[in-house]
Amino acid sequence: MTETRPPRFQFTIAATDGKARTGTIAMRRGEIRTPAFMPVGTAATVKAMKPETVRATGADIILGNTYHLMLRPGAERVARLGGLHRFMNWQRPILTDSGGYQVMSLSDLRKLTEEGVEFRSHLDGSKHMLTPERSMEIQRLLGSDIVMAFDECPRADQPREVIEASMEMSMRWAQRSRDAFDAGGDHAAGAALFGIQQGALDEDLRRRSAEALTAIGFDGYAIGGLAVGEGQEAMFATLDFAPGQLPCDRPRYLMGVGKPDDLVGAVERGVDIFDCVLPSRSGRNGQAFTWNGPINLRNARFAEDTDPLDDRCSCPTCATYTRAYVHHLVKSGEILGAMLMTEHNIAFYQQLMQAMRDAIAEGRFAAFASSFRNEYLKKAA
Amino acid sequence: MTETRPPRFQFTIAATDGKARTGTIAMRRGEIRTPAFMPVGTAATVKAMKPETVRATGADIILGNTYHLMLRPGAERVARLGGLHRFMNWQRPILTDSGGYQVMSLSDLRKLTEEGVEFRSHLDGSKHMLTPERSMEIQRLLGSDIVMAFDECPRADQPREVIEASMEMSMRWAQRSRDAFDAGGDHAAGAALFGIQQGALDEDLRRRSAEALTAIGFDGYAIGGLAVGEGQEAMFATLDFAPGQLPCDRPRYLMGVGKPDDLVGAVERGVDIFDCVLPSRSGRNGQAFTWNGPINLRNARFAEDTDPLDDRCSCPTCATYTRAYVHHLVKSGEILGAMLMTEHNIAFYQQLMQAMRDAIAEGRFAAFASSFRNEYLKKAA
Ligand SMILES: [Zn+2]
Ligand SMILES: [Zn+2]
Repeated sequence: MTETRPPRFQFTIAATDGKARTGTIAMRRGEIRTPAFMPVGTAATVKAMKPETVRATGADIILGNTYHLMLRPGAERVARLGGLHRFMNWQRPILTDSGGYQVMSLSDLRKLTEEGVEFRSHLDGSKHMLTPERSMEIQRLLGSDIVMAFDECPRADQPREVIEASMEMSMRWAQRSRDAFDAGGDHAAGAALFGIQQGALDEDLRRRSAEALTAIGFDGYAIGGLAVGEGQEAMFATLDFAPGQLPCDRPRYLMGVGKPDDLVGAVERGVDIFDCVLPSRSGRNGQAFTWNGPINLRNARFAEDTDPLDDRCSCPTCATYTRAYVHHLVKSGEILGAMLMTEHNIAFYQQLMQAMRDAIAEGRFAAFASSFRNEYLKKAA
Repeated sequence: MTETRPPRFQFTIAATDGKARTGTIAMRRGEIRTPAFMPVGTAATVKAMKPETVRATGADIILGNTYHLMLRPGAERVARLGGLHRFMNWQRPILTDSGGYQVMSLSDLRKLTEEGVEFRSHLDGSKHMLTPERSMEIQRLLGSDIVMAFDECPRADQPREVIEASMEMSMRWAQRSRDAFDAGGDHAAGAALFGIQQGALDEDLRRRSAEALTAIGFDGYAIGGLAVGEGQEAMFATLDFAPGQLPCDRPRYLMGVGKPDDLVGAVERGVDIFDCVLPSRSGRNGQAFTWNGPINLRNARFAEDTDPLDDRCSCPTCATYTRAYVHHLVKSGEILGAMLMTEHNIAFYQQLMQAMRDAIAEGRFAAFASSFRNEYLKKAA
């Protein structure tokens, strides 16, 4: 008899098409089809969705936020309650970020040193310290399947020497993250650790960061420090070189991206994994993604529109409800509006990923991308 | 072959136990098991629930609010979109109120005359007129299955002559409602009309109201003007005589009631149908109903409580999630908290109705009610 236990972490590229790749990551809690989009479950919930609904959209993995969860309900509490999977009823893989990005964007009174970041909670002002070691501990307590190294993500508009010094510190933190993760016993034996490339828009800094990370060795590599306001053109220009600096046999994860056309352009440049709050946050704000571009359901032109949100979408919202009804719910501030819109948007993103996976597997990604952009962006043109 | 089309409206009492009754109302869109609790779907949605989830809790019928729907999205618009059932994806019976109660409690600048009520929308200040005829027209445009006569519900703390004059006008409006409903063609042929007894806490006024309504003739009779601040003792004192003044072969509907112990006491006194926002509104506010009384999930004592909301509840929330998780969601203001709490509370109410139906059918309602109160109210005692 053969051993049927799933591997800890096994990335298999089934097909490539140009720089685009499709494949699978096999892990203990299930398989992740790539290119993959991870819905964001910040506070142990993908907002306005039950976990079984998230799964039904086609999501193989979700993201949890270390910063939010360490403050509420607290990592030790989640551990006492059996870990994040049991707590929130999501039995498939969970990737947790390191907290590094959000502590810089959300918390008060930060003090950044070589040791880590001291800050006050945006919830109650309580004082906390995040270091590579504590971030690894928190992610272990949560029971994360894919742990992210603790890094600093500087603003991209700062002088090169600031970006460089920050990147170099992040690389020292990457080594400390590796060491702390590896000391995690049973958890380390079943989970994966990703390093995060920094260096903003600078090809040389990005190369040095990639070399530092590769020397340490990670299960996957994230491209950090993008989608922080630099614009799509600058992001794509960076993605023209950054993925190729990372090991080609490891998954590449572009953090915090993005709009549907961002995803297509990034897959085209060799990215395998994404996360973004956009589909859920936009859904709560009345914006639906469609193959013909985003539409705002608050608009009065939808008041008697009996079409579904998107006539090619296979989600339950589109199978059941009209734009007129969703318009009414959104205008009325009804929770069901947020529920139906979020479900559609997350499902749309998953359908987009599936369409990309199919196009790569069938060697027609360039045609797919061109056709997608033609339809998705035509209103903006 | 026999005709299998469901009847327009057929109330069958299967068993009685004291004054309590259990049975069914057969209608074109489905059967309603009584005693019945109708979840409130004010603005064409039971807040924070999908309609299939509402049905899965055991609800046979929901309530829609004429006042809200006439203002947004508008009755004519709902009619153009195929009616309320199609609009909101609820194919079973819907009862609509007349708008009379809510126009007095929610709108601005009301002017009440024999003709009806002129008022301004609380949404945009627009001017509207509700009369018995317009209320019947709106409920017909919505496609309501059980239409409520248009009435006035005066404050119970007013002088007897004010209550009396108001009741008498409501009885004239009941006749106008009957006439306008009957002129509704196809809709009238498939729907039912309920009259509403008024008279506040006064037995003589209630009797005269019941006689006036019975003389007109309705499919069912509501007890209006209760649960408006008079307290449970005064309400029960009125329910000691009011249901018996109404025809015993017609369903009796106590409007806007109530807490679980209100429902048990009212069924004990011969009431068949209820509606109330309490389970959904409380759910959104963090209060869960249980067989041992209500609990507030915001309370820190639930932070690491791994029990379900109620260990005898069969709802998906209780099957899947801990109080600790729901506490976290409620504290974090997460939409999923409102979703899970509402689903539990609506399911709890339906389980309570089923337990009452079973107890009546088995001739043990008094023992059930005593046992229920012993457990439900013991903390308050
Ligand atoms: Zn859809
Ligand atoms: Zn429950």
